[in-house]
Amino acid sequence: MKTWQGRFAAPADPLFEAFTSSAIQDQRLAQYDIRASKAHARALAQAGIISGADANKLERALEEIAQELKAGDFVWQDDLEDVHTHVESRLREKLGSLADTLHAGRSRNDQIATDLRLYVKEQTLTALRRILDLQDALLKLASRYDTAVMPGYTHLQQAQPVLVAHPLLAYASMLGRDWERLRDSLTRVDRSPLGSGALAGTAFPLDRRLLARECGFAEVISNSLDAVSDRDFVVEFVASAGLCMTHLSRLSEDLIVWSSAEFGFVRLPDAFASGSSMMPQKKNPDVPELIRGKAALVVGDVAAILALVKGLPLGYNRDLQEDKTPLFHAADTLLSSLRILAATVPELAFDVTRTQHAVTSFALATDLADALVQSGTPFREAHAAVGGLVATCLEEGRELSDLDARELQRLLPRLQEVPELTPAASVRRKRTSGSTAPDQVAEQLQAAAAEIAERRSWVEERI
Amino acid sequence: MKTWQGRFAAPADPLFEAFTSSAIQDQRLAQYDIRASKAHARALAQAGIISGADANKLERALEEIAQELKAGDFVWQDDLEDVHTHVESRLREKLGSLADTLHAGRSRNDQIATDLRLYVKEQTLTALRRILDLQDALLKLASRYDTAVMPGYTHLQQAQPVLVAHPLLAYASMLGRDWERLRDSLTRVDRSPLGSGALAGTAFPLDRRLLARECGFAEVISNSLDAVSDRDFVVEFVASAGLCMTHLSRLSEDLIVWSSAEFGFVRLPDAFASGSSMMPQKKNPDVPELIRGKAALVVGDVAAILALVKGLPLGYNRDLQEDKTPLFHAADTLLSSLRILAATVPELAFDVTRTQHAVTSFALATDLADALVQSGTPFREAHAAVGGLVATCLEEGRELSDLDARELQRLLPRLQEVPELTPAASVRRKRTSGSTAPDQVAEQLQAAAAEIAERRSWVEERI
Amino acid sequence: MKTWQGRFAAPADPLFEAFTSSAIQDQRLAQYDIRASKAHARALAQAGIISGADANKLERALEEIAQELKAGDFVWQDDLEDVHTHVESRLREKLGSLADTLHAGRSRNDQIATDLRLYVKEQTLTALRRILDLQDALLKLASRYDTAVMPGYTHLQQAQPVLVAHPLLAYASMLGRDWERLRDSLTRVDRSPLGSGALAGTAFPLDRRLLARECGFAEVISNSLDAVSDRDFVVEFVASAGLCMTHLSRLSEDLIVWSSAEFGFVRLPDAFASGSSMMPQKKNPDVPELIRGKAALVVGDVAAILALVKGLPLGYNRDLQEDKTPLFHAADTLLSSLRILAATVPELAFDVTRTQHAVTSFALATDLADALVQSGTPFREAHAAVGGLVATCLEEGRELSDLDARELQRLLPRLQEVPELTPAASVRRKRTSGSTAPDQVAEQLQAAAAEIAERRSWVEERI
Amino acid sequence: MKTWQGRFAAPADPLFEAFTSSAIQDQRLAQYDIRASKAHARALAQAGIISGADANKLERALEEIAQELKAGDFVWQDDLEDVHTHVESRLREKLGSLADTLHAGRSRNDQIATDLRLYVKEQTLTALRRILDLQDALLKLASRYDTAVMPGYTHLQQAQPVLVAHPLLAYASMLGRDWERLRDSLTRVDRSPLGSGALAGTAFPLDRRLLARECGFAEVISNSLDAVSDRDFVVEFVASAGLCMTHLSRLSEDLIVWSSAEFGFVRLPDAFASGSSMMPQKKNPDVPELIRGKAALVVGDVAAILALVKGLPLGYNRDLQEDKTPLFHAADTLLSSLRILAATVPELAFDVTRTQHAVTSFALATDLADALVQSGTPFREAHAAVGGLVATCLEEGRELSDLDARELQRLLPRLQEVPELTPAASVRRKRTSGSTAPDQVAEQLQAAAAEIAERRSWVEERI
Repeated sequence: MKTWQGRFAAPADPLFEAFTSSAIQDQRLAQYDIRASKAHARALAQAGIISGADANKLERALEEIAQELKAGDFVWQDDLEDVHTHVESRLREKLGSLADTLHAGRSRNDQIATDLRLYVKEQTLTALRRILDLQDALLKLASRYDTAVMPGYTHLQQAQPVLVAHPLLAYASMLGRDWERLRDSLTRVDRSPLGSGALAGTAFPLDRRLLARECGFAEVISNSLDAVSDRDFVVEFVASAGLCMTHLSRLSEDLIVWSSAEFGFVRLPDAFASGSSMMPQKKNPDVPELIRGKAALVVGDVAAILALVKGLPLGYNRDLQEDKTPLFHAADTLLSSLRILAATVPELAFDVTRTQHAVTSFALATDLADALVQSGTPFREAHAAVGGLVATCLEEGRELSDLDARELQRLLPRLQEVPELTPAASVRRKRTSGSTAPDQVAEQLQAAAAEIAERRSWVEERI
Repeated sequence: MKTWQGRFAAPADPLFEAFTSSAIQDQRLAQYDIRASKAHARALAQAGIISGADANKLERALEEIAQELKAGDFVWQDDLEDVHTHVESRLREKLGSLADTLHAGRSRNDQIATDLRLYVKEQTLTALRRILDLQDALLKLASRYDTAVMPGYTHLQQAQPVLVAHPLLAYASMLGRDWERLRDSLTRVDRSPLGSGALAGTAFPLDRRLLARECGFAEVISNSLDAVSDRDFVVEFVASAGLCMTHLSRLSEDLIVWSSAEFGFVRLPDAFASGSSMMPQKKNPDVPELIRGKAALVVGDVAAILALVKGLPLGYNRDLQEDKTPLFHAADTLLSSLRILAATVPELAFDVTRTQHAVTSFALATDLADALVQSGTPFREAHAAVGGLVATCLEEGRELSDLDARELQRLLPRLQEVPELTPAASVRRKRTSGSTAPDQVAEQLQAAAAEIAERRSWVEERI
Repeated sequence: MKTWQGRFAAPADPLFEAFTSSAIQDQRLAQYDIRASKAHARALAQAGIISGADANKLERALEEIAQELKAGDFVWQDDLEDVHTHVESRLREKLGSLADTLHAGRSRNDQIATDLRLYVKEQTLTALRRILDLQDALLKLASRYDTAVMPGYTHLQQAQPVLVAHPLLAYASMLGRDWERLRDSLTRVDRSPLGSGALAGTAFPLDRRLLARECGFAEVISNSLDAVSDRDFVVEFVASAGLCMTHLSRLSEDLIVWSSAEFGFVRLPDAFASGSSMMPQKKNPDVPELIRGKAALVVGDVAAILALVKGLPLGYNRDLQEDKTPLFHAADTLLSSLRILAATVPELAFDVTRTQHAVTSFALATDLADALVQSGTPFREAHAAVGGLVATCLEEGRELSDLDARELQRLLPRLQEVPELTPAASVRRKRTSGSTAPDQVAEQLQAAAAEIAERRSWVEERI
Repeated sequence: MKTWQGRFAAPADPLFEAFTSSAIQDQRLAQYDIRASKAHARALAQAGIISGADANKLERALEEIAQELKAGDFVWQDDLEDVHTHVESRLREKLGSLADTLHAGRSRNDQIATDLRLYVKEQTLTALRRILDLQDALLKLASRYDTAVMPGYTHLQQAQPVLVAHPLLAYASMLGRDWERLRDSLTRVDRSPLGSGALAGTAFPLDRRLLARECGFAEVISNSLDAVSDRDFVVEFVASAGLCMTHLSRLSEDLIVWSSAEFGFVRLPDAFASGSSMMPQKKNPDVPELIRGKAALVVGDVAAILALVKGLPLGYNRDLQEDKTPLFHAADTLLSSLRILAATVPELAFDVTRTQHAVTSFALATDLADALVQSGTPFREAHAAVGGLVATCLEEGRELSDLDARELQRLLPRLQEVPELTPAASVRRKRTSGSTAPDQVAEQLQAAAAEIAERRSWVEERI
């Protein structure tokens, strides 16, 4: 059964059927497709194209098919092309020629656009929830380590000491932007193409607002040609997933480096790591590594979907069938990566003795320069003086901490008060909002927790 | 002059200077850098690190430098590394050691983050304005052709007739989403990193709200590590530019096809086309072709910026210097493409006689099927019947329009009323909102114009 | 059963197992893995680590597993991580602790590198064969249309007439380069990593040449660290697949345009096209459209695999597990696209009456300019004169062919001999090798056929 | 002056000129363009289109222009479109209407294809030379550290000890493949499009072999349509550059990690590093970081160029003008990155005391398992036993090296002979070719040096 055979002189070649079928991939769209079909039945009745009784029969049969799908009793075949043909075919088995009335005033073009939008909407809401879960995990971990000190890095070189909680909060902040971005994109997903037909609208007086409402869409897309050919919501979701994955990849990069023997800052849980088939001692940071790798694949998804839509003329083109590969891959990757990190992060154990001792004395050089400024030296001069001091130490193989107050003041004559040169004192000295000072970190923790709570309500109302 | 020489035993190798300098690229950030420096001077004074008088001197000298830059009197040298060093160096020429006081409590890390944000904010606002310009041009063109008919396509095969205005409105709709997306992203650009120092905040009590306000930022970024290493706003802008470019590329694809000899639907203005050095008759659609090509390059920019940030550990890493290449390219490409299309579109001349005659009779097949449905035939059956009719016509080399009412009713016995089978009648028959029916198109035109007007006010208030 | 459990205090979390398992994806590597295991058994015996009798037992059991796999009797489970663990586990069921001897001196790192290389080698050879198949199909089609004329295009504007065979041969030429590129890359695939252990080589005196020979590799990789972490052969294959797909996409683009109602140059076979669920008359170029879309996805694969390997430190990193997704996708897409085009191309029917009549008179303008040059006019002047003539015609709504010899000579006074202004005469006039002149096209056809025959022998010897 | 104005009723809009001009970018193609023009003059004379004397005048004037370009005396203007128009325009200033004869039988389409091929050929040869330079540098560094031991890593976790020379040789091996790949691609670059005209060949009997020879091309492209529209050589070069950049990026990643305070394995030269404007102690690995970032941009170039060519119909399309942006960027980035690394690598100083002491006792666990195998234990059992031992040690906070021979034999009862558990002994024990054993490393060094010498001769003969 093809929905379009009438005009064709020859049956489809099996090679053609195999190459063009999207049936297997479409399976996860089936429930959305049924929902849209129910809405369409109702709209047809309202428009007087079919009777109310027929609409009810169609809706009941569609609901049965939905149940069969849930139960796994539905058989998928490559020669039935796509999800729409499968549902229509099953409907005909149930209702005979009544099934043939359902397709008036619609096209697979507006159907698939609808299915994809419902799918992306659901994935987006789930992603919003899981982002909050991971933020929660990071916050809880941060609050366990809100006084422990570690080296802060730029260029992977020690820069200045920070609280362990500080980078964890930075990651929570990144995720906060992912949340906002995905939420903003929902507006553009939550619009209904139904009633657009193949491209031009339809001669049947279908109420597009009713169709939208029945499917749970907030708005109606205003131009029918745009409605069937628009995949911006796919591109936008994949791009947002790509950016979020880069955040997870950066977190992973830090976890990999921090859990090396040489850094030794953090221990991954045994239940979330694996070993080597050859080297008995190995315990590898598999999850972060895989996430780093998966992030690369989602970058590929973004390039793919953009290259896909770039060259198309207006109207539905079959190229669009391929949008499902990057979309489904990006969604699955994002959701599973968020979930496993949310499960792993709470099990991370920082070795705070080690992180503290890892701070080299030179990471406190800026504190010295700042103290010179507070003694009235212009900063650039202070920087040069301390830089020279560092050079001398390096040459002589000494640490900054090897110099006592007297020697420091001899070498930096303009230094009036010698600051306490410990990591803990350094972080405490910070005065700006958002800094790594303990009071500032506490404030960030509190604000972040409040924001997450509020956002969680927002999501749970909509999911 | 290096800002960091103190600790180094050897001077930088010239090869190193050439490889690492960003001075040339940074030029377009100079005004933003000066603005941030003025704000910093004021904040230092307010915090009591420098006197109010010194702050005033610094601000005045910075303003002078700004004027030198505008006048083109500023000399850029590769050994001065970057924009920050250039400005600081010029400031020292003007003010001597007073210039050395300015860098207390800040770092090139938060400076460059600030400069980039101010740049992206400005580019975004300009893009918002130019999108509206192009939408305006499309709308005006559409209203010139709001009754002319042309073939509508799916798969580049004739599908159903549409008004010429209909696809033009579809493109305006796409641009409307670009507008929303870029506007949404502004929230995440419009946040101040100033006062974050290199990564940890600073020991000087700088008022971050003051710093933000002076630079015109709406908010303060809450975590200092995040503030200096976040380039999400770059990725988001480049991704939005990429998506918008795919729309311009699709429009270009249609213009190229429509202006071929074989379609012959539209004539490009001579002033926006070029010829061949060898073939005297050629007139080529250069602008659409170049835009199609440029869109591919912005797809590359998106892949580049994502791959760039993907692998970084936290904190500033020098890799980030390279974000400017895709960012500047994407911004320049987007803005110039929008501008030239906004100039070209009003000059497009559709050949409406040709577009109307181009509609083949078969493009009215759906009208026949719909008429059968209105006569009580289930749609799928109607579709098959008309499909068979089409097959017969093709075999016999006849057009649908070769069949008179009697023959039609003979071949489609269930057809009660023979519809008027003309393109104009077909579009008029459409009943759904957003369809290609003249009244619906008129409504779309009006709604779009109103939206553009409102959005233009929004932009003009902020630019 | 984990191969590495000894050192772990806690069992793997099910979430972890699901996230990290590559078992499902690895299935298609199983035969290669078994082949490598057999080779390893033999090498262990030769090195005196196990007895020859034990090696024989291992090889026989491995062969049984190979048969079970072929028969589909092999059960895959997510908790057995990967293909190596599956084979090892099944081997243990068969041989008990003898299976435990097999892993001495090897690691999953060199195993998977081996499996992937054998896979890529086979895919490359198959691609080489299918490229030849498609070239054959194009050549046969070209020889059917080696005298018919059609418009040649630049910028999708008519440029000069060409033989229909000419663009078909251009596509065959592109594929010829794909063939060369893939053949060149084979050298770098056909190298054995076996015997490299996890990264450092092994203390067992395994003969790496023997291992390579047993697996059919031409060479041994010289550095063990490189051997286990190199995925260049994957990148190179995916990149070559990407470039080949762009050729298939360009061919598809032409087929789509040429089969539009407006061009009407070519008819796709009914068995390789589909219709519309709504519009009874539609016949869509699904195969070319899907190929155009799939090409975009392989562009994404290229970006993905490059981004994946970009950031890795040396040695095996788990990120590399993700290389299979783009690799398998690119290989499947390339091979299936080549196959369906090789099946579709022979069924293409050009409408040569239409292609010939489609050539506009202006497409012969260069012939006029050339004639002026042959009459002694400098080309640039001739070009300008003919350009002016074209402008006049356009203004007056006339065709070049509306002008008789006399009028031509009046308007182009330097024209001594008026050339025959027909498409057929134009192509015949071409004098350069590789041009569209019938004799040149015939020569190209012959040369291409000879090259394909030679290359086919080369492939068939190796496959 | 436009080469095509004749047919146009209106002059080009300045906005159009600015948007479409490639003059600035084309500058680096000027010498190639002149070379091709000289060849064309000679071919025209040979074909009898112009006289030998005129050909000589044209060649001399072209040579003068070449000198003006070298001397920087050539003025570039946006309204002269491109390099071809610039040269032609200057030629007219010199020779008057004689210049007008030169364009017979050619088109900007085959000219730009020629220029680009000559450019890519030269860049490829330079890249081949610089790859050898960097390999040389790596080899020299490796031979300085051919006995020092360091930890070898997989998953950034210590795996087994290796010689410092071992990973350096792995990087040299990667570069060796880049060399092969680029050399292979030369075959496909070194082909001449000249004589193909705009697409169809030309009516003038130009000798395409002569044209090729004069420009130094090895072969003639067989199909004129393919000749003008093929950019595969650009894609292939950019893709090879991208892959080579990932190798430089991986090397950079290792250098960044190894030069962190925590690893402390290697010290970058002061002349190739920079500091912080805020933190006086900082010394950053700028070069490796920038290379890591630049590699991401070349990944973007690959995606861009593939997306660019993907959607084009046959024949020259203006989109192709945009190929220069990714091509030039990729070439510049590759060549400059190779050069600066070749300058930096010889200055790297490994701290071999630190690398040796960094090897943890657990990195010798495989040596223990191997010893058990040599005592007759099946490997999988040996692995489990040693894994258990490691677990015990971790629990008790002991190192493997804390266990003396007696205790080892008590805990591993099947161990007959206790191996010497030092990093140096471990590397010495390796027996496979290509392993990290000192004799094997020495052999790799020698073989690599011989190969580089041979390849250098090959390049120097051609450059």
